Amino acid sequence: MKLWKKDYELNQEIEKFTVGNDFILDKELVESDCIASIAHAKMLNKVGLIDDKELISLIKGLNEIIHLNKKDKFEIKLHDEDCHTAIENYLIEKHGNVGKKIHTARSRNDQILVALRLYEKKKLLEVIELINYFKNELFELIKKQGHIKLPGYTHMQKAMPTTIAELFGCFISSMEDNIKNIKSVFEIIDQNPLGTGAGFGIPLVEIDRATTTKLLGFSKELENPIYAQMSRGKFEGMIVNVLTQVMFDLNKLATDLITLNMDEFGFFKLPSEICTGSSIMPQKKNPDVLELVRAKYSVLIGEEVKIKSMVSNLISGYNRDVQETKEPLMNSFEITTSCLKIMSLVISKINVNEKKCENALTKQIYATEETYMLVKKGMPFRDAYKQIAHKYN
Amino acid sequence: MKLWKKDYELNQEIEKFTVGNDFILDKELVESDCIASIAHAKMLNKVGLIDDKELISLIKGLNEIIHLNKKDKFEIKLHDEDCHTAIENYLIEKHGNVGKKIHTARSRNDQILVALRLYEKKKLLEVIELINYFKNELFELIKKQGHIKLPGYTHMQKAMPTTIAELFGCFISSMEDNIKNIKSVFEIIDQNPLGTGAGFGIPLVEIDRATTTKLLGFSKELENPIYAQMSRGKFEGMIVNVLTQVMFDLNKLATDLITLNMDEFGFFKLPSEICTGSSIMPQKKNPDVLELVRAKYSVLIGEEVKIKSMVSNLISGYNRDVQETKEPLMNSFEITTSCLKIMSLVISKINVNEKKCENALTKQIYATEETYMLVKKGMPFRDAYKQIAHKYN
Amino acid sequence: MKLWKKDYELNQEIEKFTVGNDFILDKELVESDCIASIAHAKMLNKVGLIDDKELISLIKGLNEIIHLNKKDKFEIKLHDEDCHTAIENYLIEKHGNVGKKIHTARSRNDQILVALRLYEKKKLLEVIELINYFKNELFELIKKQGHIKLPGYTHMQKAMPTTIAELFGCFISSMEDNIKNIKSVFEIIDQNPLGTGAGFGIPLVEIDRATTTKLLGFSKELENPIYAQMSRGKFEGMIVNVLTQVMFDLNKLATDLITLNMDEFGFFKLPSEICTGSSIMPQKKNPDVLELVRAKYSVLIGEEVKIKSMVSNLISGYNRDVQETKEPLMNSFEITTSCLKIMSLVISKINVNEKKCENALTKQIYATEETYMLVKKGMPFRDAYKQIAHKYN
Amino acid sequence: MKLWKKDYELNQEIEKFTVGNDFILDKELVESDCIASIAHAKMLNKVGLIDDKELISLIKGLNEIIHLNKKDKFEIKLHDEDCHTAIENYLIEKHGNVGKKIHTARSRNDQILVALRLYEKKKLLEVIELINYFKNELFELIKKQGHIKLPGYTHMQKAMPTTIAELFGCFISSMEDNIKNIKSVFEIIDQNPLGTGAGFGIPLVEIDRATTTKLLGFSKELENPIYAQMSRGKFEGMIVNVLTQVMFDLNKLATDLITLNMDEFGFFKLPSEICTGSSIMPQKKNPDVLELVRAKYSVLIGEEVKIKSMVSNLISGYNRDVQETKEPLMNSFEITTSCLKIMSLVISKINVNEKKCENALTKQIYATEETYMLVKKGMPFRDAYKQIAHKYN
Repeated sequence: MKLWKKDYELNQEIEKFTVGNDFILDKELVESDCIASIAHAKMLNKVGLIDDKELISLIKGLNEIIHLNKKDKFEIKLHDEDCHTAIENYLIEKHGNVGKKIHTARSRNDQILVALRLYEKKKLLEVIELINYFKNELFELIKKQGHIKLPGYTHMQKAMPTTIAELFGCFISSMEDNIKNIKSVFEIIDQNPLGTGAGFGIPLVEIDRATTTKLLGFSKELENPIYAQMSRGKFEGMIVNVLTQVMFDLNKLATDLITLNMDEFGFFKLPSEICTGSSIMPQKKNPDVLELVRAKYSVLIGEEVKIKSMVSNLISGYNRDVQETKEPLMNSFEITTSCLKIMSLVISKINVNEKKCENALTKQIYATEETYMLVKKGMPFRDAYKQIAHKYN
Repeated sequence: MKLWKKDYELNQEIEKFTVGNDFILDKELVESDCIASIAHAKMLNKVGLIDDKELISLIKGLNEIIHLNKKDKFEIKLHDEDCHTAIENYLIEKHGNVGKKIHTARSRNDQILVALRLYEKKKLLEVIELINYFKNELFELIKKQGHIKLPGYTHMQKAMPTTIAELFGCFISSMEDNIKNIKSVFEIIDQNPLGTGAGFGIPLVEIDRATTTKLLGFSKELENPIYAQMSRGKFEGMIVNVLTQVMFDLNKLATDLITLNMDEFGFFKLPSEICTGSSIMPQKKNPDVLELVRAKYSVLIGEEVKIKSMVSNLISGYNRDVQETKEPLMNSFEITTSCLKIMSLVISKINVNEKKCENALTKQIYATEETYMLVKKGMPFRDAYKQIAHKYN
Repeated sequence: MKLWKKDYELNQEIEKFTVGNDFILDKELVESDCIASIAHAKMLNKVGLIDDKELISLIKGLNEIIHLNKKDKFEIKLHDEDCHTAIENYLIEKHGNVGKKIHTARSRNDQILVALRLYEKKKLLEVIELINYFKNELFELIKKQGHIKLPGYTHMQKAMPTTIAELFGCFISSMEDNIKNIKSVFEIIDQNPLGTGAGFGIPLVEIDRATTTKLLGFSKELENPIYAQMSRGKFEGMIVNVLTQVMFDLNKLATDLITLNMDEFGFFKLPSEICTGSSIMPQKKNPDVLELVRAKYSVLIGEEVKIKSMVSNLISGYNRDVQETKEPLMNSFEITTSCLKIMSLVISKINVNEKKCENALTKQIYATEETYMLVKKGMPFRDAYKQIAHKYN
Repeated sequence: MKLWKKDYELNQEIEKFTVGNDFILDKELVESDCIASIAHAKMLNKVGLIDDKELISLIKGLNEIIHLNKKDKFEIKLHDEDCHTAIENYLIEKHGNVGKKIHTARSRNDQILVALRLYEKKKLLEVIELINYFKNELFELIKKQGHIKLPGYTHMQKAMPTTIAELFGCFISSMEDNIKNIKSVFEIIDQNPLGTGAGFGIPLVEIDRATTTKLLGFSKELENPIYAQMSRGKFEGMIVNVLTQVMFDLNKLATDLITLNMDEFGFFKLPSEICTGSSIMPQKKNPDVLELVRAKYSVLIGEEVKIKSMVSNLISGYNRDVQETKEPLMNSFEITTSCLKIMSLVISKINVNEKKCENALTKQIYATEETYMLVKKGMPFRDAYKQIAHKYN
């Protein structure tokens, strides 16, 4: 039964269409929703809208759902529409009338927002953790083989010498900036939307937003209720943007590895166990895993565009359109976390071919050094440059 | 077992990552793949690479798979990687050695291409059919209520009078152009890639591409094997673009209906059975279905960006990246077809409120007519304009 | 003076902001606008809204503008807003009262549409011409060096042998499909919008759209006036999409040339005259021109996103938002035409290094041939594959 | 003369193509480039690479350029390629041999990076300042008319009462979060890239990066030289993303104003001085300025896509592709600053129509309050909801 059930039946095709994948996607949100609902129930009790016995029943029921969900036994049926409804229906069915009170002083609009924000905060912390893990693998590689010299490229042409330490250190630096970026987004989204109702607050009854804010660990309330609604899409766009930044780094690293792993360079050797084969060419050992990581950066660019374009040209206040931000958001988290894990594994397995790197340090790569030899002897830089350029061209 | 199985084991996490959702997505392709394989087997027989008995076995096995798949009983296991492998494995398991011959003279690269193109052609025709159905619903509405006059808007302000026939007729015209566009894309992709192997043809053995081209109903061969590979992503981008065009129309229609259905206008009435409610506000009847259609246009923009960005900056020849074009492609078809269906349903249910439309035809909407009264009396247009403007400002 | 000048003054900052770059961009449209205005004047004369003498004055005036514009002497001032206003103002100033009649039976909304469509048709034909020129350069290269064998790559790894003819032939095939695609878009946009007014037709006066359609060389009228407005943005999105397809091909060709021109491959030699240098490294000869072509594909993806996102979630009827489609449209034409020209030049200058290509055909590239040797001797393909795979791994 | 001038001539068409708009865009960077060059010269003097007299000459020359540029008299010619070259050429021409030393210990790659970062930091601070100004206008409006009640909308339908203070307060909250976001990006990009050369440091000569870091006011050095190159595009993507966030808010505000300014609502009145007219309909006063602001959000989405897609699939080290990030970056700054200014002006001019707002507070908007009346009397929320729903449906 739907939360808004009235005296008429919804057309079945319309029902199926409007529910979409929500009854699947929302599985990810059940736990966050129950945690938020427990805090909400405690607040309702504190302000006198439910009594102690009712609170105990609600907490019991919500914990049952968390437990069932962990064992993958809490089902969201299509005609439940979403996890919010499934939860309320469960409470009513198993715990009677008190279930009808859980939705007091809230709307699905702030309910989904608070569940999403708890979910997003958890996932952002997971991303940071995975980045740190990934950085460690880079450190390990540098510790072992960082001293090896190899050509640095500009315009995809040999330019000047560099080292393995510098090449992989680049990604450590970049990931450190990503963490700063993620933390900043985390701080911005860390505002409690619960209590903003459908975007215009809760009429008549006094609620205590400070309580749920504290219980749920938010650093502050998201005060303006219209902004709470506007934040849906805006915050998700900000989140996917930082994930896109992480994926950009992995895209570049994957591109480096694919290229420098080619026989024509041979600077790296990807072990067989991480390569896949061809169905027709028996000699092939292909870096599919890296190609897929590379491609998934563009997937995130697309997910970000979806969210950003979707919320355009809409007036203030909740518009159902924003529901469609959920799938690209969740997909972006899934991709970023899985790519960080797989690239950590790849880094732990690769081996630099010192010999090949050395051989690749051919003469022209030292032309800039030659120039600076002349500079050190007092020749103006531009004259020295021209003298050496003449030699190489 | 994988098609490229060698003497080493693939790391399990790498395996899971590289397979991704393919083992799910490929269900959509099983039938096309079997149909193409039957044509391929017939060709192999014709050129003498398999004998008649072998051909009969292969056809039998492939038809078994089609049959099982229709009943949703053909499983693609994660370690099968994809439908191609699952099919070959089934043939070997059930029909013995001949199964090892089905992959003669082809690569997974042209195998997936041909299955995709058959799938895409089928889906494009389905889209055209659904557009025609949608157009019919528009015609029906116009037949019933097309004569009703209502304000036309520019800059979201009342401009000049128009009619229901003209307003909905606009979408008929646009859908007719979409069909032209789809047909043009259909013609371009209607090239048989089977026989191009991994992108460099099939060595040593003589194959007969004309036979598979004819059997599979392609209008011509995709001759250049490198272009066959390049077409992956390029053609899909073209397809998603035309779908985006269709969704643009539905986005605009949904926006019109949402806006002009507002109480402030009241030109349309959406019946309750297609509206959903609010969990907090008991009076609400919301046009969720239209808001979701509206949002899904932006989803398609994002899917198109994924495909187009993903294939950038890659050298010629197959790159695994293109596998990631499959999901946005299939998702785009799924969205477009379901939105065409649901909007056909919506159009069949809406009712124009003639009274409200009439009332909205207020005086200022006839200012241009007043101007032309003066023009007809001989006043230069710009002078007439100024005279009337003075009156209204 | 503005066409809509009333009794009040527009705030100057608002004026500057709303005009934007129009007074610059519109220079591209002056000629088309005058041509359309001449046809419009002839029609007005035919239906009796202006007399023969007036027609002669208008034609004279409009030809003067075309002439001035060709010598870059027709100025659109900021407070003219756009070319339409500049033209009307010129006619009034130089030819008196008759200038006030040129805007009879049209709106700036259909005026800009018809000018744009004439411009777009001209530019699309120019693109086709440039593609044909580019194809010729590819043919010339193939004629000279097409026979040369070189490695084909999959997963950026040596796969099987291919030829220069096949590699560059791929782009010929693709460009042929692009031409089909462009022609299809050309046909769709080839509809005369003149006479649809501001989106709701022209009241009271009888106009003769068949006349302007014929005079301007459109293949048919764009009948539904609301669709005329909806086509702004929709058609431009379709156009930029086909240009993006052209740029995708150039992106891939540039990527191939940059990669295979690296010393590590050496298959091509870019002559010095098309390479640029480094300010610090005297030995460098960089393929900047190719890197820029490569990047500009992404510029077009972004331009397409602008147009497609911009028109979302807006109700039917003209919205000023669509004015912002003009710049990405014009920029996309400028980029595509200049890149086609420059890549034609590049292709005419490159030289294949036959020796390097030959040396790169190392043993493993013939593994598939070895497999087919066994197939020809009767071994099932999959067994043959495994036998050869064992040898190479 | 080019910095990398060698013994051969660059093809003129290639030259024109590769220079592109740089010789125009770079005008924005001349001042930053000179400031960075002065710091660089001081550092060169400190480490003994130029003497005191040379330093004085260079500072004098660079200040001359700043001065000329301010008066718009410093020209970057097409064959100068960019501002860096124009500056070096000026120094050599006017101050002799010492000009040939300014490029000692740097590359154009770190020179452009440092100029860009100085430019970006300045522009980000300008954006913050404009946001604060905009917030003040919102505060002023709320101070005057914040008490007025009007309907809040969900699903574009009347939902519950809200106030002008809450509606505009929403944008204040959002802009405050934008400022946090901008500051975080500012901190990340506030790293001195000067001294990283072409991406692999400066060979042989000892430089003192701490000095330029301090002189230029960066908070730290960007240490890893490969990361310096990778930051080009990555940082610009981050910047454009925060600008897109700002534009999203303005898009929503513009949409609110356009909609609620419609006669059908009438909550706001836009004064004539900020409205434009129609060329055909004399009664029209159109909110063009708001429609353009609305559209420009999508322009920024497209600019962001350009940058993010452009840098994909490229190996580490400088690639010329990144030069194409400059135009979307500068355009995004230009759009965001001009839109903030114009929307501040709009807000200062609008007037809330209290009467119309009051009239719009019709009965159904209090249904939620009615529900809570029952809740306060002890009825479970869901039962109360059903009772009231029955009344309204």
